[in-house]
Amino acid sequence: MGHVEGFMFPRTATGRSSLLPSPPWHYSGAMLTLEYRTDPAAVAELLPAPLEPADDDPGAVAVIWADWQSCSNSFDELLDPIRSQYLEVFVVARCKYRGRHFSRCLYIWVDRDYAMVRGHHQGYPKKLGSIFMTRPVEVGKAGPRLAPGGRFGATVAAYDRRLIEATFEITDTSDHAGFVNALPMLHNRWMPAIESDGSDSLDELVTMSGYDAEIGRSFTGTFDLSLFDSPTEELTRLAPRELIAGYWREVGVSWNGGTTLERNVLPAMHPS
Amino acid sequence: MGHVEGFMFPRTATGRSSLLPSPPWHYSGAMLTLEYRTDPAAVAELLPAPLEPADDDPGAVAVIWADWQSCSNSFDELLDPIRSQYLEVFVVARCKYRGRHFSRCLYIWVDRDYAMVRGHHQGYPKKLGSIFMTRPVEVGKAGPRLAPGGRFGATVAAYDRRLIEATFEITDTSDHAGFVNALPMLHNRWMPAIESDGSDSLDELVTMSGYDAEIGRSFTGTFDLSLFDSPTEELTRLAPRELIAGYWREVGVSWNGGTTLERNVLPAMHPS
Amino acid sequence: MGHVEGFMFPRTATGRSSLLPSPPWHYSGAMLTLEYRTDPAAVAELLPAPLEPADDDPGAVAVIWADWQSCSNSFDELLDPIRSQYLEVFVVARCKYRGRHFSRCLYIWVDRDYAMVRGHHQGYPKKLGSIFMTRPVEVGKAGPRLAPGGRFGATVAAYDRRLIEATFEITDTSDHAGFVNALPMLHNRWMPAIESDGSDSLDELVTMSGYDAEIGRSFTGTFDLSLFDSPTEELTRLAPRELIAGYWREVGVSWNGGTTLERNVLPAMHPS
Amino acid sequence: MGHVEGFMFPRTATGRSSLLPSPPWHYSGAMLTLEYRTDPAAVAELLPAPLEPADDDPGAVAVIWADWQSCSNSFDELLDPIRSQYLEVFVVARCKYRGRHFSRCLYIWVDRDYAMVRGHHQGYPKKLGSIFMTRPVEVGKAGPRLAPGGRFGATVAAYDRRLIEATFEITDTSDHAGFVNALPMLHNRWMPAIESDGSDSLDELVTMSGYDAEIGRSFTGTFDLSLFDSPTEELTRLAPRELIAGYWREVGVSWNGGTTLERNVLPAMHPS
Repeated sequence: MGHVEGFMFPRTATGRSSLLPSPPWHYSGAMLTLEYRTDPAAVAELLPAPLEPADDDPGAVAVIWADWQSCSNSFDELLDPIRSQYLEVFVVARCKYRGRHFSRCLYIWVDRDYAMVRGHHQGYPKKLGSIFMTRPVEVGKAGPRLAPGGRFGATVAAYDRRLIEATFEITDTSDHAGFVNALPMLHNRWMPAIESDGSDSLDELVTMSGYDAEIGRSFTGTFDLSLFDSPTEELTRLAPRELIAGYWREVGVSWNGGTTLERNVLPAMHPS
Repeated sequence: MGHVEGFMFPRTATGRSSLLPSPPWHYSGAMLTLEYRTDPAAVAELLPAPLEPADDDPGAVAVIWADWQSCSNSFDELLDPIRSQYLEVFVVARCKYRGRHFSRCLYIWVDRDYAMVRGHHQGYPKKLGSIFMTRPVEVGKAGPRLAPGGRFGATVAAYDRRLIEATFEITDTSDHAGFVNALPMLHNRWMPAIESDGSDSLDELVTMSGYDAEIGRSFTGTFDLSLFDSPTEELTRLAPRELIAGYWREVGVSWNGGTTLERNVLPAMHPS
Repeated sequence: MGHVEGFMFPRTATGRSSLLPSPPWHYSGAMLTLEYRTDPAAVAELLPAPLEPADDDPGAVAVIWADWQSCSNSFDELLDPIRSQYLEVFVVARCKYRGRHFSRCLYIWVDRDYAMVRGHHQGYPKKLGSIFMTRPVEVGKAGPRLAPGGRFGATVAAYDRRLIEATFEITDTSDHAGFVNALPMLHNRWMPAIESDGSDSLDELVTMSGYDAEIGRSFTGTFDLSLFDSPTEELTRLAPRELIAGYWREVGVSWNGGTTLERNVLPAMHPS
Repeated sequence: MGHVEGFMFPRTATGRSSLLPSPPWHYSGAMLTLEYRTDPAAVAELLPAPLEPADDDPGAVAVIWADWQSCSNSFDELLDPIRSQYLEVFVVARCKYRGRHFSRCLYIWVDRDYAMVRGHHQGYPKKLGSIFMTRPVEVGKAGPRLAPGGRFGATVAAYDRRLIEATFEITDTSDHAGFVNALPMLHNRWMPAIESDGSDSLDELVTMSGYDAEIGRSFTGTFDLSLFDSPTEELTRLAPRELIAGYWREVGVSWNGGTTLERNVLPAMHPS
């Protein structure tokens, strides 16, 4: 009695039940990034004070699909692939905080519980979704090649409703994947007090970046994108006004923590 | 810019995207409670200080399946049942905190994201699982009647592995559903700091109870229970030594917040 | 070597792997039946010769949700509820065959493999779907009561797209559940020849009914219904012109085979 | 009225609702083949007359995971990847029929309805399962490289129970993928009569092969394999006695029908 372990709940005497192993966490996969411009006011309304819109191109948005394998430093998960494979799709904009620019995730869906809570730890507002993304192939007729003319589809649904559909066609190689998701992330981490009275027991502004990023094959291209309504989503407020460009690339990266920039706390409470 | 709303993330200008509507939340469903005794040390090792084992019967454990419909005070979710129906299974023990006894959830699985994060708000260490529980029927041969001799099965799996299997047979009506889950809940709410350095940005001890509880048909009976191993679970440490009794009953309840008993905080941080 | 057993494939020496146990099969559950009139031509175009439209009310259609438990005559599945619980939604019209009227399933979705192939055996053209239907409750605020004013929602999706949404409100008790699905079923059973040349190795017209039907609580009411498009569905061709009435009732029934009315065969082939 | 279209049910006036588009069907993906020897009697008991055990190495079995994209000749499915991506795992042995040797699928699980019924058309006794297979990566730490030392995991579960687990490690390149699944397939196609009296309305022996096979990167290696019990499976009867070798390779192939070798028919029935 007395001591429990584990990076995340449930914490136990052994730590083995923790929903997450301790970082570092390693990721390898493919990312499809579709950048467009929406009404800058639609981005601005999603930035809580003291965040401000980006100085340049404040209506720029990226919708990003990622098809990952990830694992802990034990690498055990890679041999039980139900515990290492997942997909996510997220909507990113840029913002300014105290004069510095950051990327920021506005919405995100993922298809595994550990990846969902890992995101909550990082300030990503993750929900569950059903996510698909065409994979390139090397042989046969049932898939695109990683070459100009290669065409990909990508979708996300939640609660049995399609939320986003896109198609992408490679036109050329690329040495980058756009500018919207290229900055360190700036996220709020929030958890309401159990009193459910409008106060937050967790209220932080954090920043983070991956490390040991490794970029594989990398392409740019054209795309189309459809955003749909749902009783619990409001993606259509971010409707495209102008498409910028799409990017597909292989990415490897590791993560081992971030930095708290601001922390509001409720009064500490200890038994008298 | 500046103001975002929503009980839970993602918070937006309208609040509509929040993974959870504001409480109160209402629940109606059926609960199957299976009580047994394990090694008291196996319970004690799961109680972080300053929690202590219960004075009486400290090895008593309940494994509980619940087949819920739940909704917000708008009741909108009830007409889109994918957003109101879910199952959960949880393992409960009792503990003592500053001289008072509480129930405490040790492990829990649920099959919807909103119910998972609702649990995190309440200090339930929820993971996702695949959960099934036989339903009683009124006509035909394919189900038990709510009467002596009625037999039920109940299972939970996660990551494609069975974790718990049970069967239950009604022997009589009952005016209660056991003693292990009968007390106010005592939960820790934890979230590691983004620095991932072993410190917790959220570290609270909270208590809560439902209100407006309404009990429907209520039965007791005999049961058997099997707990299985998994690379990410340790349920077999709670192996039964002696079965006590099982209970099936219909329950309605509402929830509208709890009370923080202790709160440890990291230093507040504000830009200079 | 030489002898394999099992009602359905895979057939083995023991028969244990068969996707289906031998009939009889027993069913207990709740059915929500929503009857409306569409363009009679939209029904007629789905009736292969020699079927003809019903003499009376040939545009009448029923969309039916069923929330089942089912089992074989061993009743083993009831204690492993993942093997006994499933939902289905189906679209039914009536037709005339050689002067006699029948009910006929036009489209159907189900959420378990055994129920899907059981349907194929019976001539139901089953696909997989994600199906939800509000359940009545006896206590609490999170569900309708089986009484006037009780409101239910029902949905089906496939391939991450909503196909049908409906709501139903009880207005009164009922001694029936409409007329569209009230007749013996008339189904085609088809399987293309492996040559995939347009010929069918299985081409039968069959009829069947359940037995030992037992009706529980039974209600009628009002409803609304929305049908949606999809790249692989054409439900909007059956758009409602006039709503008739909705019905909710508890049903128990068993099934033990049907009758072949017509059978076209390709030439038998035996090694010379 | 009168004419309905569609390769598979449901057949309609337009043919659009068919669960399957007409062949040809194209496949691109990765296959992991694990070959071992079991008791030859365990294979022999799964071969219905007139099939006989293979002359050489009659206890040889292959367990094969495949991670596919597939599409029709329209290629439309590739841009809506939920309709083109699926996994399957199957158990294959060899047999002899009228003096000629064939490969034969004994058991198979797949994770999409269209792929399941496509299999039934081809005589594969497909059930639904949850299937995972490690994917190779080009960058980062979260996955194996296609090179000696690359390690892969592969699993299948059904009805919330693990059925097979395996790991594979590349030792070398390979110009083949073993001998068990290398022959034309020989399958029975069965569908019981609706009378459910033990007779089969569909009872054929068919053979088929793909065409335009294209082999990509190709490796061999060592593996381990675990088979588990379930109330509805009997894989442990095929327990390994001796492991042979494993193979991973990229495959592209198309399919456009097979050949009926034998056909037993029930009497044709036509209205008098």
